[in-house]
Amino acid sequence: MSAFPLEHYISQIRPPDTAAMNKASVRLDSLVKPPGSLGKLESIAITLAGIGGDTYYSAGKRCVIIMAADNGVAGEGVASAPQSVTYMQTINFTKGITGVAVLAKQFGADLKIVDVGVNAQIDHPLVINRKVRMSTENIAKRDAMTRDQAVEAVLAGIETAIDAAKQGYTLLGAGEMGIGNTTTSAAVLSALTGLAAEQTAGRGAGLTESGYRHKIQVIETALRDRAPDPTDPIDVLAKVGGLDIAAMAGVYIGGGYMRIPVVIDGFISIVAALVAACVCPAVRPYMIASHASDEQGYKHAAKALEIEPCLHLDMRLGEGSGCPLMFAMIDAACALIRDMGTFEQAGIGEEYLNALQEA
Amino acid sequence: MSAFPLEHYISQIRPPDTAAMNKASVRLDSLVKPPGSLGKLESIAITLAGIGGDTYYSAGKRCVIIMAADNGVAGEGVASAPQSVTYMQTINFTKGITGVAVLAKQFGADLKIVDVGVNAQIDHPLVINRKVRMSTENIAKRDAMTRDQAVEAVLAGIETAIDAAKQGYTLLGAGEMGIGNTTTSAAVLSALTGLAAEQTAGRGAGLTESGYRHKIQVIETALRDRAPDPTDPIDVLAKVGGLDIAAMAGVYIGGGYMRIPVVIDGFISIVAALVAACVCPAVRPYMIASHASDEQGYKHAAKALEIEPCLHLDMRLGEGSGCPLMFAMIDAACALIRDMGTFEQAGIGEEYLNALQEA
Repeated sequence: MSAFPLEHYISQIRPPDTAAMNKASVRLDSLVKPPGSLGKLESIAITLAGIGGDTYYSAGKRCVIIMAADNGVAGEGVASAPQSVTYMQTINFTKGITGVAVLAKQFGADLKIVDVGVNAQIDHPLVINRKVRMSTENIAKRDAMTRDQAVEAVLAGIETAIDAAKQGYTLLGAGEMGIGNTTTSAAVLSALTGLAAEQTAGRGAGLTESGYRHKIQVIETALRDRAPDPTDPIDVLAKVGGLDIAAMAGVYIGGGYMRIPVVIDGFISIVAALVAACVCPAVRPYMIASHASDEQGYKHAAKALEIEPCLHLDMRLGEGSGCPLMFAMIDAACALIRDMGTFEQAGIGEEYLNALQEA
Repeated sequence: MSAFPLEHYISQIRPPDTAAMNKASVRLDSLVKPPGSLGKLESIAITLAGIGGDTYYSAGKRCVIIMAADNGVAGEGVASAPQSVTYMQTINFTKGITGVAVLAKQFGADLKIVDVGVNAQIDHPLVINRKVRMSTENIAKRDAMTRDQAVEAVLAGIETAIDAAKQGYTLLGAGEMGIGNTTTSAAVLSALTGLAAEQTAGRGAGLTESGYRHKIQVIETALRDRAPDPTDPIDVLAKVGGLDIAAMAGVYIGGGYMRIPVVIDGFISIVAALVAACVCPAVRPYMIASHASDEQGYKHAAKALEIEPCLHLDMRLGEGSGCPLMFAMIDAACALIRDMGTFEQAGIGEEYLNALQEA
């Protein structure tokens, strides 16, 4: 059971520290480079100052939180892989052989693997048990879950992020494993934005053309028959979402609550970020995009969040695999603001500064 | 003096090893992920296999080679900073306080700082002396340099890359410092592609609107009066280029000669890459893009090279600052192909593979 209701966490999220952001901005402009010439790395440094409340953010221990859950809609044949892959990959994360595991190791990040609804009993020392239920229902036929279960999954995510913060993690990523979750993510995105399923649904891990047409029909059926309330993101999660998406939304909220940045991975991760921002707009400044997923719905969710990814790698693996790559860019931003010399230290004086200010 | 003439190096560059590339491709498709789902990281792993002649590339010691030189065209007022900044920043690289120096340290890369034409006597243990001459001429009034000097600068770049390879470096980046070099780069790009100066010239480190109009006029004047031969890249370098661009072009050629990948930085670096590919098309497969520079000419040079950068950071600092960031992505590609498990190791069998193959 959760220590607090969802409303408690939402009410406690504060805006970024604008004084610290201003200090970071002044510091960046004093460094030996044309103003703004480090682009998004400067924006990230300023964002981190706002989150941490200091000119310099200490990005130390970092982890990718992977929310694993099954989705009943997999029974509709909307995914190219069988449902059992959710369970197998959840175990494979612990063995270090999946994409996100290899990248996390490469960039010094840990994994926190959380079972919020895998359709199998898991008793593994490296898998955190926050199972809400065994899989969701098939959204083409029934609501995915009850409202209480959706809230429980969000709280599982919040509390996982809080636990991570208490363990000293200062940088989080939100990943997932759940066969069928590009379908539920597209349904959630369509429900929240009003976009047609054709725009939000992609080919996932590799659907055929007929499989893709069927996936769109399944999403259209779910949206019509479940009729989620677009102004109530918890209702959207319960009716057409998934436990993985709900729990990831919680990770963002938990990051905001603990004043820790959370890196968004690909399509499912950014849909969860949009859910979190709908539940609690104050969370938005705590989110940092990583890569532009090749799944077509990504760009619509990014537009809705007004967020621009730094990495254009045509990746569509999920798992949180984009997060460790972005951790490296965040480290770069932190190093630049901290370690670059000022114009004064560089022996470059008034003449250059005046020329720059004229520009 | 150079050990060999330019033609020697050009004639020795071999195509990538397609057998190794095929092996890398087969290995990538055996890993526990949807085929192709790691996007450009898979392409990079395949490229590296072709360069190194083995499924796995050992990206060990890495460095950014910074070619520093002055450009006479700075006297036209086309840059926002005075020419003396070239010298000061060349020294600042040795102190570790510039953007590229901080990023190189963050990502475990060394710097090789090479003076090919700084307009000051430099006697510093950390600056390699390959000075061809003190600055070039003002291209609005005279040829930048003689043809022999252009070749000498290219050879300086080739030999610096060869020296790096002999010292055990297996990953290079091509950076620069030279006030006025966005003007010469735009002139070179226009000469090679036929694009108008309005399309190739940007605002550099921060020009005013009138300064920008003037910069375009200077480039148009240089192209008209110098009339470089677009089919002769050495003539283009000599008439409207710079020693920095010429030497960077040499770094790419030297990388190809030693079968080592060379990472492209921003606008000046990619123009030098285009020069290298014009001098010697066989060099092209040895080049890896890093970030999409905010300087508008970048995209035209990238199109001409048919190369797509991974990082979209809106950076426009130069110095080679994008290279260390890309080294991290290259490390990611190497780790993924080497360390991910196969479907077999992951216990995911025929059912999934068949589904994927149908897709």
